[in-house]
Amino acid sequence: MADVASSTGSMIVVSNRLPFVLKRNALTQLLERKASAGGLVTAVAPVVIQSGGLWVGWPGIHLNNPNEPIPESDPNDKTPTAGLLSKKVVSVHINADVFDSYYNGCCNGTFWPLFHSMPDRALFSADNWKCYYDVNQLFADKTIEAFDKLIAEQGNSAGTPLIWIHDYHLMLAANWVRQVAEERDLRCKLGFFLHIPFPPWDIFRLFPWADEILQGMLGNDMVGFHIEDYCLNFVDCCQRRLGCRVDRKALLVEHGGRTVRVRPLPIGIPYDRFVQLASNAPKVMLTNQKIILGVDRLDYTKGLVHRLKAIETLFEKYPEHIEKATMLQISVPSRTDVKEYQDLKEEMDQLVGRINGRFTTYNWSPIRYIYGCVSQDELAAFYRDAAVALVTPLRDGMNLVAKEFVACQINEPPGVLIVSPFAGAGEMMHEALICNPYEINAAAEVIHRALTMPEDERTLRMNYLRRREKLHDVNYWMRSFLKAMGSLIDEDGDEVRPTTMQPVTMDDFDEYLAKYIGHTHKLALLLDYDGTLAPIAPHPDLAIMPEETKNVLERLSNMPDVYIAIISGRNVNNVKSMVGIEGITYAGSHGLEILHPDGSKFVHPMPVEFEDKVTELLKALQDQVCKDGAWVENKGALLTFHYRETPVQKREALVSRAQQMIVAAGFKAGAAHCALEAKPPVQWNKGRASIYILRTAFGVDWSERIRIIYAGDDVTDEDAMEALKGMAATFRVTSSHIVKTAAERRLPSTDSVLTMLKWVERHFSRREVRRDPESNLLYRRQSSSKTNGGLKTEMSYTPKAVTPEPL
Amino acid sequence: MADVASSTGSMIVVSNRLPFVLKRNALTQLLERKASAGGLVTAVAPVVIQSGGLWVGWPGIHLNNPNEPIPESDPNDKTPTAGLLSKKVVSVHINADVFDSYYNGCCNGTFWPLFHSMPDRALFSADNWKCYYDVNQLFADKTIEAFDKLIAEQGNSAGTPLIWIHDYHLMLAANWVRQVAEERDLRCKLGFFLHIPFPPWDIFRLFPWADEILQGMLGNDMVGFHIEDYCLNFVDCCQRRLGCRVDRKALLVEHGGRTVRVRPLPIGIPYDRFVQLASNAPKVMLTNQKIILGVDRLDYTKGLVHRLKAIETLFEKYPEHIEKATMLQISVPSRTDVKEYQDLKEEMDQLVGRINGRFTTYNWSPIRYIYGCVSQDELAAFYRDAAVALVTPLRDGMNLVAKEFVACQINEPPGVLIVSPFAGAGEMMHEALICNPYEINAAAEVIHRALTMPEDERTLRMNYLRRREKLHDVNYWMRSFLKAMGSLIDEDGDEVRPTTMQPVTMDDFDEYLAKYIGHTHKLALLLDYDGTLAPIAPHPDLAIMPEETKNVLERLSNMPDVYIAIISGRNVNNVKSMVGIEGITYAGSHGLEILHPDGSKFVHPMPVEFEDKVTELLKALQDQVCKDGAWVENKGALLTFHYRETPVQKREALVSRAQQMIVAAGFKAGAAHCALEAKPPVQWNKGRASIYILRTAFGVDWSERIRIIYAGDDVTDEDAMEALKGMAATFRVTSSHIVKTAAERRLPSTDSVLTMLKWVERHFSRREVRRDPESNLLYRRQSSSKTNGGLKTEMSYTPKAVTPEPL
Repeated sequence: MADVASSTGSMIVVSNRLPFVLKRNALTQLLERKASAGGLVTAVAPVVIQSGGLWVGWPGIHLNNPNEPIPESDPNDKTPTAGLLSKKVVSVHINADVFDSYYNGCCNGTFWPLFHSMPDRALFSADNWKCYYDVNQLFADKTIEAFDKLIAEQGNSAGTPLIWIHDYHLMLAANWVRQVAEERDLRCKLGFFLHIPFPPWDIFRLFPWADEILQGMLGNDMVGFHIEDYCLNFVDCCQRRLGCRVDRKALLVEHGGRTVRVRPLPIGIPYDRFVQLASNAPKVMLTNQKIILGVDRLDYTKGLVHRLKAIETLFEKYPEHIEKATMLQISVPSRTDVKEYQDLKEEMDQLVGRINGRFTTYNWSPIRYIYGCVSQDELAAFYRDAAVALVTPLRDGMNLVAKEFVACQINEPPGVLIVSPFAGAGEMMHEALICNPYEINAAAEVIHRALTMPEDERTLRMNYLRRREKLHDVNYWMRSFLKAMGSLIDEDGDEVRPTTMQPVTMDDFDEYLAKYIGHTHKLALLLDYDGTLAPIAPHPDLAIMPEETKNVLERLSNMPDVYIAIISGRNVNNVKSMVGIEGITYAGSHGLEILHPDGSKFVHPMPVEFEDKVTELLKALQDQVCKDGAWVENKGALLTFHYRETPVQKREALVSRAQQMIVAAGFKAGAAHCALEAKPPVQWNKGRASIYILRTAFGVDWSERIRIIYAGDDVTDEDAMEALKGMAATFRVTSSHIVKTAAERRLPSTDSVLTMLKWVERHFSRREVRRDPESNLLYRRQSSSKTNGGLKTEMSYTPKAVTPEPL
Repeated sequence: MADVASSTGSMIVVSNRLPFVLKRNALTQLLERKASAGGLVTAVAPVVIQSGGLWVGWPGIHLNNPNEPIPESDPNDKTPTAGLLSKKVVSVHINADVFDSYYNGCCNGTFWPLFHSMPDRALFSADNWKCYYDVNQLFADKTIEAFDKLIAEQGNSAGTPLIWIHDYHLMLAANWVRQVAEERDLRCKLGFFLHIPFPPWDIFRLFPWADEILQGMLGNDMVGFHIEDYCLNFVDCCQRRLGCRVDRKALLVEHGGRTVRVRPLPIGIPYDRFVQLASNAPKVMLTNQKIILGVDRLDYTKGLVHRLKAIETLFEKYPEHIEKATMLQISVPSRTDVKEYQDLKEEMDQLVGRINGRFTTYNWSPIRYIYGCVSQDELAAFYRDAAVALVTPLRDGMNLVAKEFVACQINEPPGVLIVSPFAGAGEMMHEALICNPYEINAAAEVIHRALTMPEDERTLRMNYLRRREKLHDVNYWMRSFLKAMGSLIDEDGDEVRPTTMQPVTMDDFDEYLAKYIGHTHKLALLLDYDGTLAPIAPHPDLAIMPEETKNVLERLSNMPDVYIAIISGRNVNNVKSMVGIEGITYAGSHGLEILHPDGSKFVHPMPVEFEDKVTELLKALQDQVCKDGAWVENKGALLTFHYRETPVQKREALVSRAQQMIVAAGFKAGAAHCALEAKPPVQWNKGRASIYILRTAFGVDWSERIRIIYAGDDVTDEDAMEALKGMAATFRVTSSHIVKTAAERRLPSTDSVLTMLKWVERHFSRREVRRDPESNLLYRRQSSSKTNGGLKTEMSYTPKAVTPEPL
């Protein structure tokens, strides 16, 4: 067993279901535990118990009284969860209707088909999504409750607890846990494992709230999937949907200023237990026929209809198997209240009937079809005695039937495993026969090949398969997870992947910007000031731009092909004095005032009726809410109410009062960094201002003439990113966990903005030196006049002394 | 118009349909042309006509007499195809049943849903695929016929004809054309354009014959898609399914020794024609209501059901639009004989009825639903007068309705375009409102926003949209295609992407091999000889390994961590003398004889009854088929019949006779390079031999102890690649256009094998030098004894003079 407690802290597992379900005894009306026998529980429960950890989950029953105590386990219960005391369980109670929308609606109606790349079957409903969101928040609250319990019990000896969130039911929970933990300065590690596939970008992007899912998963320190393909799909989606910086090779994603590790952790089975079961199970099937075995939940992802058709084709093309081989299909009822699953059951019933009707003889039927559950013992006997196992899903995260089958194949000579390449298991179990379930004829051929395979080949293949599964069993998976979390020291000497992203370097911009800007276009650099060029400070006056940033900007401002505008929420004169560079454009008050390099000024007309109101509102705010460190800044066209220095507990009341006053005065209230802005109700924002600036400088066809970079860190910058969508390279500077942005890329800090500016400088410096194709001499490009705006700038190439250098 | 003839040769267009359909006049019983009005035809037909080219396609009718002449166009026909004389048309006649399987079955029943990432709807049928294959071959034959026609007409002045194959109906045709052209030494350029999306790997791989599709498309010199995303999906699939070397940045794929260019070529519309139509069209809609317009083929990819539900939500949430706005949905009947489309029609009928029933007032209905076709004039009027256009497909290659709408928006102030991000058009038309059609609520919000958008914003957005489409019209697309084909010189000074892959360098192996081999594992190098280490020669004795290859192999053979085996179809002594390196393993006759480095020899037992038969067969072959340069090589355990030097026209008869004799003698006949091999019927091949070699050298758990590289160029090497699947890095050396391989990667030549060997040498040289962590000294790794097989090799680190170098 993996020893987690010794190395770090206790483990809190968070999963949709607890490792047991509660049932009410019809006689006594008392709640009873019914233990779960799954391999995952077998592997994880002992670690939770041994580490003194807890388990958070839904108990499988809707209780009228959520405080009804959870019973202890039955004294005869010998399963691993028996040791999980009720005080170590935090059960999540959810309103039945909400649960239905969350579980049947969103989880199984949307994520299940979507993540299995069957988008046609996915239903997208805002209401279900809302319930999913709320339930995840509830799970997060309960996880914090578990956290508190742990600290109450163990104090400092709790170490750094490891919180492990499971599966597609709980993709949003991590961030809320992280947020509370950070606020309360609690240390913990957050890990996530997805038990189903992760789809490619083209499929995932269909989900309307895709960015919330991704940011939810990125709330963890480590995100695990079964196989590397799913990891790469996820990394790809983070890059394309969120604009995160990623490292595909090391499988890292940068988000909210942190590095999130993405890891392939293929799950295994409790191998030895299955060997044991197979050794002890009595013979169940009293036939000498070769058994072709299928065991599946009755689900459309499992390819059952395709499989039966392949069996039909087998008996049609190879009648020698008639009366010699039988398909035994066990279909475990699943989601029986969903129409899609009812339809599938009907289709299966009909198909079984038709095929049996076609081939059945007096003493034999081609298909034995069991619609129901079988016991672990029976299952082990089937696995052991089958000649062929058909594991042919259309799509499957991993598929444990394939692994359980090989574990139970203790007879000599062994049988043959057939597996679909679209199951995670198909990626690793190389010695199985691989079969594309969509190709009925080829599938029949593969089954025939399996039925007629020589003994020595069967033995060779099965030996390899068994050795691998024995080694990579569910405990190995558990240890792999702990290693990936950094909670277990790697004693095997495996290659260890890097766990932290390299800091942003100029190379990071090469692919994105070099291709976009090219070698001929001019560039307009539109930059926010606070939080973009200068780090955020407790007071606006202290938000000073680093010397290095200023120097780079100054040099850029002298380049003929680079145009610079600073667009800030500050008063225009204030932002100009903070930046202090001549010859560039400044836009203040979110673009309501614009100062051109030639000194001319644009002021957005203020609705006359608001001129007095500004003064009135200023006074009212100063009188009523400027206390406890709050103050109002008068920016001319707008007012900013700063509450950065107010005590946390007084904030809500102050801000809400200020907001009321602003709205009552007929202004729009907008959120900024620890501040509230009162804007006159004009249709103007950083987006409109950016377009005004670009049009003024480059003419009406600016979007075809120039390239644009926009960088900003504030919600008010989103207006510009939205307006420039598809026409600019856009960067949102953010270190927050959840940020919705229209920007194409994210940057973690003002430092990385500086790096980007340096990239621009290098790019344009290189461009300025050109080789004349006739004389083969190097020339430096010069502007004959540098004036306001690109249109007026005349370009010419004039010979000048240049050190010949390789370009 | 793009001037192709002046720069290169004539253009032959190959498309499923000709640019007109033939109809039989019910009265006269004569065939008549009905011209097509599509934008593509408008742009392409003039180029074909002007260049003196031809058009190959199906005439839209099944004729009893395929030789019935195609009529000339009607004298009143003013469409661009009117000038296409019947002698410039090569019509493809296809048996009606085959056509149905090809067109409705494979093209529309499989590729259409699959390529639109709706795999649930895709049916995979071997019979339909067979018809698709056959029809593509027929199109290829007809293309060659057209080619011959061109040469007959124009002689040398035909230049280098440009053959342009269109769309998902004809993805296989190129290779057959290429093959015939190469055999007959005809020069041509082959280009392909896909008019629908290309799906991601996770979806595309479901298709059972995926590799044939990819190799079919790679038969072209250039493969075009609408947008870069589709290009990247295609490049990805080529790398993952075929093991091709690719350049994602330059969008290049290496295949069959050639570089295939992959290019985004977003199609445009005949912009000016639509402006003209809109200017002339009379007002059709006599209402003052705001029209929300939808125009689509009635297809499940178009998101029509989602759209109507969004309209319902709009009127529910924003009743202010009742009696003020009307949805006009034009649904053009499509594939009406397919059940899926009939179901969709029913669903639409019902939904329209329900929504109208819910909201209709005495003078107004929310939805006007036209199930039928409208004329171009009417359409232009709708486009011109609509307030909002809803282009909200669930998935769409490009979608021209979005573009036609903006072209026709000549009124002031203009309307608003809403477009789905899942249409190609959504990637470029940034100023449209973007709307995820799956999110009904958000879609309703977007429609409301469009209906209430201020005039100035509408004007701004529409101006940009119109300017872009005017510039990038269908003629621009035509020119882009010609540029991508290298048939038009680029006068615009755009960035030109590289068109040829860089030669294979050591860097190419870094990602694949370094990760696989790592820093601790030993390596077994299993190499075929002919065509892998030594270039193929007219006679086996002339197939000499280059000196450089020999030197690298020799040095590798002295490395303690590298084990080498040469596995050849040659006699074992022969292959040993050809390679001439001591201390490595040689397997001859495909592994039937294995010579270990210590001199011991394994010989696969020959069934006794075959010993005499070998002698008999040898004699019989020599007597009867060894003429015209054919000869038999006696390899001991097998015989090889070489026909490399026989005249092409006599080959088929000779080979077929030899094959009969081999089979009649009870041997298995196997194909090799211009040779036929007679093998005794033992279950042994290069795969079994490889595993035998590895087990002998490294013990029964070899697959966990070592890393393996296998490289070979022959079909007989496929047995080894199959057997080592997932346990080795496998390379198939091939410069053929169509090769089915189990190898993970392809290499274009024996040169690239040498480069791979050099990479291995460098990798292990670096590994041999290690820094001692305590003394900080560099050490060279040494083997104390180098014997046969890895198990017996003892490793130790001993200090040795080493030049300190950065590792």
